[in-house]
Amino acid sequence: MKKEYLLTPGPTPLPPQVSAAMAKPIIHHRTPQFQEILKEVGCGLKWVFQTANDVFIISSSGTGAMEAAVVNLLSSGDTALVVQGGKFGERWTELCKAYGITTEIIDVEWGKAVSPEEIGKRLKANPQIKVVFTTLCETSTGVDNDIRAIAGIVKETPAVLAVDAISGLGAVDIKPDAWGVDVVVAGSQKGLMLPPGLGFITLSPKAWKLVEVSKTGRYYLDLRKAKKALDKNDTPFTSSITLISALNEALKMMQQDGLENIFKRHKIMADATRAAIKALGLELFAPTAASDGVTAACVPAGLDGEKLVKTMRDTYGVTIAGGQAELKGKVFRIAHMGFITESDIIMGIACLEKVLTQMGYKFTLGAGVKAAEEVFLK
Amino acid sequence: MKKEYLLTPGPTPLPPQVSAAMAKPIIHHRTPQFQEILKEVGCGLKWVFQTANDVFIISSSGTGAMEAAVVNLLSSGDTALVVQGGKFGERWTELCKAYGITTEIIDVEWGKAVSPEEIGKRLKANPQIKVVFTTLCETSTGVDNDIRAIAGIVKETPAVLAVDAISGLGAVDIKPDAWGVDVVVAGSQKGLMLPPGLGFITLSPKAWKLVEVSKTGRYYLDLRKAKKALDKNDTPFTSSITLISALNEALKMMQQDGLENIFKRHKIMADATRAAIKALGLELFAPTAASDGVTAACVPAGLDGEKLVKTMRDTYGVTIAGGQAELKGKVFRIAHMGFITESDIIMGIACLEKVLTQMGYKFTLGAGVKAAEEVFLK
Repeated sequence: MKKEYLLTPGPTPLPPQVSAAMAKPIIHHRTPQFQEILKEVGCGLKWVFQTANDVFIISSSGTGAMEAAVVNLLSSGDTALVVQGGKFGERWTELCKAYGITTEIIDVEWGKAVSPEEIGKRLKANPQIKVVFTTLCETSTGVDNDIRAIAGIVKETPAVLAVDAISGLGAVDIKPDAWGVDVVVAGSQKGLMLPPGLGFITLSPKAWKLVEVSKTGRYYLDLRKAKKALDKNDTPFTSSITLISALNEALKMMQQDGLENIFKRHKIMADATRAAIKALGLELFAPTAASDGVTAACVPAGLDGEKLVKTMRDTYGVTIAGGQAELKGKVFRIAHMGFITESDIIMGIACLEKVLTQMGYKFTLGAGVKAAEEVFLK
Repeated sequence: MKKEYLLTPGPTPLPPQVSAAMAKPIIHHRTPQFQEILKEVGCGLKWVFQTANDVFIISSSGTGAMEAAVVNLLSSGDTALVVQGGKFGERWTELCKAYGITTEIIDVEWGKAVSPEEIGKRLKANPQIKVVFTTLCETSTGVDNDIRAIAGIVKETPAVLAVDAISGLGAVDIKPDAWGVDVVVAGSQKGLMLPPGLGFITLSPKAWKLVEVSKTGRYYLDLRKAKKALDKNDTPFTSSITLISALNEALKMMQQDGLENIFKRHKIMADATRAAIKALGLELFAPTAASDGVTAACVPAGLDGEKLVKTMRDTYGVTIAGGQAELKGKVFRIAHMGFITESDIIMGIACLEKVLTQMGYKFTLGAGVKAAEEVFLK
């Protein structure tokens, strides 16, 4: 009789419509039936990415789509500027290094957002920088970077701005065309309410100019192939049929809601979670730049953070995320993105309260839930 | 009331157990629950790949796994020998070219298998060849190559043998360890009865020596990362959770059947399909090396091959495959791999008979079905 609840920042829970779409008998990908799905998905992706440019689907995890950005934009010996304020910022650096790309790094203290002005300074100091890599929502720290401000600065330079929005797209606002973000990368298992297995990438005309001159070897992730296929309403290699069919369902659900409502919903859930954390006497890990997609909270001194997460999961079936890399055991993270609701947040906070009590942490039982309820009732 | 039947060589139909596994609520990938699945899947993959070596799972289409072979084994300037007897042989060449690898090509007439002796001759003539790339079942022509004989020759040389078994693994026998095949690549949507979205690769110790010296830039497809993760019962990037859970179900079903029974079943279905094609007065496209996974038949003179495939699909819901590339309109292909049964084959042949009749082709109605029944009754 154990019931499972998922409050992790990827995978996020799947709507029943999405699960049902995956359970349907599979269809062949070179049929009018699937071409219709691809066409609908193509429109839906442009809508959720808020761009008039093509959005390409890659059968890969989000990292595959990040790698597509690196290998299509840059060649060995080129220079990139990387914002490194968490595990996923570091991934950009690792990807660049794997391809012989020189990286200038802005080391941001974990839990803080990058200063857009600092990016401007670096670009001015080093005109060799061809691409700026940063992150919308740094899942490992629960930080949202100010992409709008960053784009405002980068778009005035010859450099291209590439944003990892894997965590965040469909939960936190990002407007590539309106703000001047050249490349946006996303993944399926976060705001888009799907299982992992699909990566996405969209590019501005400014970014395409780099694609045309990149000398990096590539085939599976070659976006020129992806473009050629998409122009014929196809994917360059066998499409992930079940995941793309599920994506079509998820996009339809999101379109019924509307992007403004979706972002508002995420903001309210984030506000409620943050209010609950504070009401429990806990500290937010990223108080000045807290993400609307996931909240990272500090484990109180003397408590075993890994045990906290493990107990919530193994005793109560509530899976939240622990800390990654240097934050292991030091933070826990509650996701409020994708198919997660007010009621899920209340349930998660209540479970957190129970386990904190069992672990000997002192606070007013119910205070977290009350604080969340107050936000939701506003 | 239209009912759909899939007789295509990828995707193949999904067993209900597999579909049900995908429709289950998603679980997080860093949990004991998913680690248990990964462990079972790891054993199951070694079983179906008939190897004691690790089998790595990549979230990608089969081409991603082929690219993993190329970038991990070879560097720009290296030489490879490619057997090119169809669309998928050509893919090896394209992949090598994308990475600056010199390719020697054995051009095999489409519809024929490669001569293993020819491979031996080429290896003798050019000791620079580091890797031989070939195909188990060339889906585009319905040809099975004699991998056992090829391996017997290549294993006596310093070269590494890499086989694209995307179409075929789990349907047609291939024994990497026993025969001396160094690298086997596979995909999920064929003999393994899953949707597309997973690629697989396994390597011999001889192949790993090349991985260690390859200078090609790589990250997402870096098998050293995959190995490090697998040693901890993990994948290097977010696992395709639903597809891997489905894989676990599919492997259990296959293990209950046993590999010998599975291969025998495929052989009988192939024999029946071939007997039916001949009984209808049609010609096999690959009479001397016909695959046990898919049968390619020539479209009779004067008939529109594309219309044949389209009518079967749009009027009767029976999807078979047409010809690809230079075979477009000239052949049609009936798959008998994965979750396809004797009854499906009979149904497909009967549909073919109906449409051939409607298109004005003359033959004894029922002759194909009768020939297939005779094989099945033997």
